[in-house]
Amino acid sequence: MRTLLWIIVICLSCPLAGSDGYALWLGHQLIEDSIVRQDYRAALTFIDGSTGGGEVATTATNELRRGLSELLGVQPLRGPGEAGAHGIYLGLRGRSARLDHYLATADVPDLGSEGYHLVYHDGDVLLLADDEPGLLYGAFDLLRQVQALTDLRSLNRTEQPAYAHRILNHWDNLDGTVERGYAGFSIWNWHQLPEYIDQRYVDYARANASIGINGTVVTNVNANSLIFREDYLDKAKALADIFRPYGIKLYLTARFSSPMELGGLDTADPLDPAVIAWWKEKVEEIYARIPDFGGFLVKANSEGQPGPWEYGRTHAEGANVLADALAPHGGIVVWRAFVYSDEAGRDRFREAYDEFTPLDGRFRNNVLVQIKNGPIDFQPREPVSPLFAAMPRTPLMLELQITKEYLGQGTHLVGLASMYEEVLGTDLRPTEPGGEVHQLISGIAGVSNIGTARNWTGNLFGQADWFAFGRLAWAPQTAAREIFAEWAGLTFGRDPEVIDSITQMLALSYPACVNYMTPLGLHHIMNTGHHYGPGPWIDDLGRADWNPYYYHGATRDSIGFDRTSTGSDALSQYPEGFARRYADPATTPEKFLLWFHRLPWDYELAGGNTLWRELGLRYQLGVEQVGEMADIWSGLEGRIDAERFRHVSQHLAIQQREAEWWRDACLAYFRSVSGRPLPEGVPAPPQTLEEYKALTYPYAPGIRPQW
Amino acid sequence: MRTLLWIIVICLSCPLAGSDGYALWLGHQLIEDSIVRQDYRAALTFIDGSTGGGEVATTATNELRRGLSELLGVQPLRGPGEAGAHGIYLGLRGRSARLDHYLATADVPDLGSEGYHLVYHDGDVLLLADDEPGLLYGAFDLLRQVQALTDLRSLNRTEQPAYAHRILNHWDNLDGTVERGYAGFSIWNWHQLPEYIDQRYVDYARANASIGINGTVVTNVNANSLIFREDYLDKAKALADIFRPYGIKLYLTARFSSPMELGGLDTADPLDPAVIAWWKEKVEEIYARIPDFGGFLVKANSEGQPGPWEYGRTHAEGANVLADALAPHGGIVVWRAFVYSDEAGRDRFREAYDEFTPLDGRFRNNVLVQIKNGPIDFQPREPVSPLFAAMPRTPLMLELQITKEYLGQGTHLVGLASMYEEVLGTDLRPTEPGGEVHQLISGIAGVSNIGTARNWTGNLFGQADWFAFGRLAWAPQTAAREIFAEWAGLTFGRDPEVIDSITQMLALSYPACVNYMTPLGLHHIMNTGHHYGPGPWIDDLGRADWNPYYYHGATRDSIGFDRTSTGSDALSQYPEGFARRYADPATTPEKFLLWFHRLPWDYELAGGNTLWRELGLRYQLGVEQVGEMADIWSGLEGRIDAERFRHVSQHLAIQQREAEWWRDACLAYFRSVSGRPLPEGVPAPPQTLEEYKALTYPYAPGIRPQW
Repeated sequence: MRTLLWIIVICLSCPLAGSDGYALWLGHQLIEDSIVRQDYRAALTFIDGSTGGGEVATTATNELRRGLSELLGVQPLRGPGEAGAHGIYLGLRGRSARLDHYLATADVPDLGSEGYHLVYHDGDVLLLADDEPGLLYGAFDLLRQVQALTDLRSLNRTEQPAYAHRILNHWDNLDGTVERGYAGFSIWNWHQLPEYIDQRYVDYARANASIGINGTVVTNVNANSLIFREDYLDKAKALADIFRPYGIKLYLTARFSSPMELGGLDTADPLDPAVIAWWKEKVEEIYARIPDFGGFLVKANSEGQPGPWEYGRTHAEGANVLADALAPHGGIVVWRAFVYSDEAGRDRFREAYDEFTPLDGRFRNNVLVQIKNGPIDFQPREPVSPLFAAMPRTPLMLELQITKEYLGQGTHLVGLASMYEEVLGTDLRPTEPGGEVHQLISGIAGVSNIGTARNWTGNLFGQADWFAFGRLAWAPQTAAREIFAEWAGLTFGRDPEVIDSITQMLALSYPACVNYMTPLGLHHIMNTGHHYGPGPWIDDLGRADWNPYYYHGATRDSIGFDRTSTGSDALSQYPEGFARRYADPATTPEKFLLWFHRLPWDYELAGGNTLWRELGLRYQLGVEQVGEMADIWSGLEGRIDAERFRHVSQHLAIQQREAEWWRDACLAYFRSVSGRPLPEGVPAPPQTLEEYKALTYPYAPGIRPQW
Repeated sequence: MRTLLWIIVICLSCPLAGSDGYALWLGHQLIEDSIVRQDYRAALTFIDGSTGGGEVATTATNELRRGLSELLGVQPLRGPGEAGAHGIYLGLRGRSARLDHYLATADVPDLGSEGYHLVYHDGDVLLLADDEPGLLYGAFDLLRQVQALTDLRSLNRTEQPAYAHRILNHWDNLDGTVERGYAGFSIWNWHQLPEYIDQRYVDYARANASIGINGTVVTNVNANSLIFREDYLDKAKALADIFRPYGIKLYLTARFSSPMELGGLDTADPLDPAVIAWWKEKVEEIYARIPDFGGFLVKANSEGQPGPWEYGRTHAEGANVLADALAPHGGIVVWRAFVYSDEAGRDRFREAYDEFTPLDGRFRNNVLVQIKNGPIDFQPREPVSPLFAAMPRTPLMLELQITKEYLGQGTHLVGLASMYEEVLGTDLRPTEPGGEVHQLISGIAGVSNIGTARNWTGNLFGQADWFAFGRLAWAPQTAAREIFAEWAGLTFGRDPEVIDSITQMLALSYPACVNYMTPLGLHHIMNTGHHYGPGPWIDDLGRADWNPYYYHGATRDSIGFDRTSTGSDALSQYPEGFARRYADPATTPEKFLLWFHRLPWDYELAGGNTLWRELGLRYQLGVEQVGEMADIWSGLEGRIDAERFRHVSQHLAIQQREAEWWRDACLAYFRSVSGRPLPEGVPAPPQTLEEYKALTYPYAPGIRPQW
């Protein structure tokens, strides 16, 4: 008894699983109810793997063992301990007698790459795949089921990822900073690689594999050619070796001018033989170290990055030289379409489409074009880019942002699964099948929100966005609410009221953010540079379309950006079946109104309010919704561990203050322009517009100091 | 039994106390031997505090309770549970019957500020102090005793810190970077203060209090006036509130030009009434938030920092205006003497002395002058600064560097207690009493090696340097070996062979580092800017004394810097009794030879080797000593937790490679200059001198990228 007591005390001294957030959604809480636990134990007494012993399959078995030890409180055996014992059989088709026995009676189709079949059969749990990564994803699925106390007897699922390419993009620089990073700094300790392998690299790979992510780009799209120097390739290899057992491929960003900067050539012209040879040789060097290297992600001729235009070549010509170097090794090029002209044109919205549609079909087979969800830049809400429906002969990657550059950065709780759901489900061809965004793409990339913060994402609830990205990259039609609930249960435990409350908070948070920042289709009105806080008044930057003002153009009479045929006609870039609805403000969904139309303040909306009145009420509603979120959270006190409870409470307090700041500063400004009084129910801003304009935050994170 | 088993399994799943290094030296291992444990429990059944309930005293009691729970496996009660029970009584003199009973028979002198008396008396452990911080330091002392399995009956100690000022200096910038930081980035999340209080701030305060540190400067000496903006003062207040219960005062660095940058004044002339008023008012603002604010640390007219010289004023005039503003509130000014002229003068060694000695006695009483241990800049070994013996009327602070800017940064294990011991024990007036450096100072500052790394210091053994700094700031005559052993026991557990091995490694590491980097008095030959790796050949920078070459001037015939009367005569800055020995190379300790003398390569040393031969052999010896350290460490496999074992092994591998790099590059260079062959026993460098010269590390940490 005494011994028991001292063990209990030690455990109470141990950091609770997950209490600092490091364990993410892999906390694997011990099943508390002893009867339930015993039932699971009896069902899962062993893990029998007939996997051929490859490293990914071994990882699958190890992760299953580790997770089940935590969930059940006992290590599963390595095979049936006694006759009649039940457990888990995992293996590749044709490699396991037990699985073949099952397959003789069940018709399990080809599971393809990374797919798996998880089923309860004759008292055992069977996990079958046609390649090793499938076993790994199946293992994590099974762990989620046990964590959620799913009845094992109900298991009968076949899962295949919707896309082959489910890739994180880190905007991490070699100096350790993270562009648009709000979770501390870069987790890649380049200086001490390849010798020093931080435990975090392994836990990173585990976390990503558990949500089906199979690739990662570890360098910033604002690229640095130094990554191709041989000592850095050795460092990259060390990372690739850690990721490989978790089914994750390493990618790097390729700076287009590398042949000059690193190679000493006097050109980077993609049609120059020396340049072609340089890339070929550099790719060989990479594959000599990393045989399954994923390929290159490239940002070219965008925001000052070098590219083929310097030589009068097209994006396709630029991409193809890299693609040809990679093709013999199975690598791909992901070429970003986030391009806008050096000089402000008619409408930035139009530019990527205008630039890339003529190139459709001109890229090599192993090139994908990566397109941000919307045509401007990751705003809280953007219409989807028309480019998704305009390059039918080119494989496309959707680029989503997980780090919340424009949605409150590190201080706001915003459940991005809601946004991702909207994007993926947007039907660009409503009059025919196959036109939803998730059907138009071959892969998804997410700009990572991961950093050196103990809890990986800085703001704890940023974990939910990372989780959601992974789950949607695998199964893009999953409902946001389902993802919220799943994440809550895995992260905070099984209490259904806790899960429900957190699901509510998350579900409320995205509409709230849009309301208190950019309601009714406002966009790009964040303060400039760091994008922290409001700045709709800013109108003095060197280029028209850098100015927040450009995106709403508010005057005494009206506000909004006309993208119809009377304006920039960006609407014409969409399929007619989609665009038709947006031509008329009366049929335009209110959430996109000011994206496409310029309207008088007195324009009457469907509900009866004027645009002016509705704008003010939406800002106020957003603030109140944050208050609701905070109320829900404080109701969870005592049911969440103290450390995470406090962390979230403190961040919600910041979010409340900042939501009010957004409301107050934006309405102080719009009021000054429109000359109209704030609607009833909207409090007067406590400071003057001049005071809001004078606020500076030179060290807002995620970008170089902004003096 | 089953229950016991599952609890054990959970514990095995918990991160072992200290296995990621976060727990530092406060891991408080449970006493394993049940009989020994029971003895301690019986002796320490309760903690009875008659402390008056102030926050520092409450912290003392809480820390004692927490630590003992971990050590004994049971929470001490809050008072005697039953008649005859024994435990701990802590309290302030005159506040506790039990302590007064003891004091009636024992003569305990005034313990002064922060002192304590810890004694075993009539079966109880008594902890007495005359102020609350004394209780806190005594509590941590008691915990160390229990951790080390000290016989409580032998307790009878009175401890008082040698100095009132035991202060960490963080060179942390407001953008999160750390100048000369190799442990990640800054732990201060300014952007989310004051609302978000990271758990790490509390653990930071605990760690520092446990080693007697009572002040911290949280901003870089290359200062930023923004810290004085009101929102930043609110952030600073939040930190001060966390530190206060741990007896730690907050300090800030003051940029001399703040009245202009922040205040909009057109001058920062310390004698200008508007400037004087500005500082007075700013100090009032600070104390309105932080009533026990420590004061300002100032770097002025040094390396581009603004200061009084711009206005034709002296350092004293500059310091005094700040001192006058702080004095009514009890604050101090710490004014750094690290000043060297804008243009290369005769010898940088001389400059701080020449600048500051005329100012002796001109500073206000609440100004301390802070002097680096040596006259150049934190080299692996420097002679102590002559300034320590030259300002008898001014209170002085010794500035030591804990972060290893010039001693291997984040990749080398170097036990700095050895260096600190040498510095503190250096007798500048050997012919009279009271001339040792530790006797000439009123406080010690340490440039912190703390960052966002999970283990706080990046390289795990950096913790030993932080620990040593604290222990020596408290008791500056403690032997380095004693500190190594104490740290090893607290950090890695009680196995005496483990403690002994680690003590050996640490003791070997500082001589090793000096040998493989800068033997025989070489100095400042690191590559420039980042100071990472060797660069003795560098001779093309804009200013003579920026060049490594300047510090050794090696030619075909000779090497070294003549600081005697035939050279720069820096030696004359020392008291004659000290300098005498260094005037003649034959009596100069070999470790300082090339600091003071220019000698022919063929100069014969005491042991019979030429200078040239000895140089080569020293570099080789250093490399071999790292190998010895690595051998000792690998012998500990299985006796150290796997994660920390691996971390240190991997870092030692880097250190081995870098020690060889130092040897090879330096000897390739010196060989090319001297024209002499390397001594037998020293391997030929594997690369050419040109190859060593061509190596670049633009992202070596701790400084802005060095392209």
